[in-house]
Amino acid sequence: MNLSIDDLSAAAMYHWMTGLITPRPIAWVSTTSSRGHVNLAPYSFFNGVGANPPCLMFCPANKDDGSPKDTLRNITETGQFAVNLVTEAFGESMNTTAAGYEADVDEFDMAGLEKVACQTIDVPRVAAAAATFECKLMHAMTLGTGPGGANLVLGRITHLHVDDSLMVDGKLDLSRLATIGRMGGPEYCRTNDKFEMPRPKIPAPRVSED
Amino acid sequence: MNLSIDDLSAAAMYHWMTGLITPRPIAWVSTTSSRGHVNLAPYSFFNGVGANPPCLMFCPANKDDGSPKDTLRNITETGQFAVNLVTEAFGESMNTTAAGYEADVDEFDMAGLEKVACQTIDVPRVAAAAATFECKLMHAMTLGTGPGGANLVLGRITHLHVDDSLMVDGKLDLSRLATIGRMGGPEYCRTNDKFEMPRPKIPAPRVSED
Repeated sequence: MNLSIDDLSAAAMYHWMTGLITPRPIAWVSTTSSRGHVNLAPYSFFNGVGANPPCLMFCPANKDDGSPKDTLRNITETGQFAVNLVTEAFGESMNTTAAGYEADVDEFDMAGLEKVACQTIDVPRVAAAAATFECKLMHAMTLGTGPGGANLVLGRITHLHVDDSLMVDGKLDLSRLATIGRMGGPEYCRTNDKFEMPRPKIPAPRVSED
Repeated sequence: MNLSIDDLSAAAMYHWMTGLITPRPIAWVSTTSSRGHVNLAPYSFFNGVGANPPCLMFCPANKDDGSPKDTLRNITETGQFAVNLVTEAFGESMNTTAAGYEADVDEFDMAGLEKVACQTIDVPRVAAAAATFECKLMHAMTLGTGPGGANLVLGRITHLHVDDSLMVDGKLDLSRLATIGRMGGPEYCRTNDKFEMPRPKIPAPRVSED
């Protein structure tokens, strides 16, 4: 089936993108406003960007009234945010923080989550999260305006916390990391059904026949 | 465990980021060089950005010698690329295209994949892919230089193909979409183990007690 973009509403496009671009990792982003209000909210248009320099991105779309979400407003005020990972044990509390609370509501409290201070930024993190990336704002791009207008937040990773439960003899044991992924609609996936495909060796240079 | 970023090499940081930021969707990116050479390669620092405007991103890191990958060079030459989705049936052929072939090698041929022309860009797509997003370059950001230097490619979605096998009565049947996700090291995950969590309703406005 061919879908011409011109014929699709933004809502339809969002449906297609979130249904097809799967599975998506989840950034559970904690921030603090300039007035000291704490926010915690999940975003699945999220990924690493690179290790040189260490940076990641996530995309908080505008609210239905066209205004920026608390997360984005806080980041543009303070230049700081933390990305907590979401594992199976935290699915429900993560989902609780996805509700549209008012700006002065602390989603840590609403979800019954313990918070602890970060090391390099003045933002709390989810104490029991499997891992947290502390980030300082590199760039916030406004790509669209109005309802659902796209924003891209690019952050430089300044510190990394990894829960001791994932470490065996000082090494990350990936088999213990039960992250969940975001699928379309109300769906999520577990990541326990894994398989391996080693990256193929670089082929030997061919001898030119020209 | 606390990891100070200053103590980590870029290689170690890449290991942590790809091991922890999971599951990642896979962009199987097809491009054409200005000389007409076709390229196809997978990238898992990839996601949607937003639906208003419809746009997505992926991040092709520099090669070990510090030069840009063929994918990035082609996109900066032509301003066009297609993102094909990777489902279980295409795992092995996708992995074949991850090898570091020379610029004049057509990875479609190496992996035995049929190509067809796109609608809005002069780039071939994977004929049997579950879906393909045709994109025109919005912005290519160079964030790091040298080996592994990070680049972020932002593309505007100009056309969407969805395979008829995913459609039931004109609607996308997500249960038929068997995408695979990228995990750390050589690992991938299937997305068949799903569960639902409806987004909570927006809480009713609280009556201020001030």
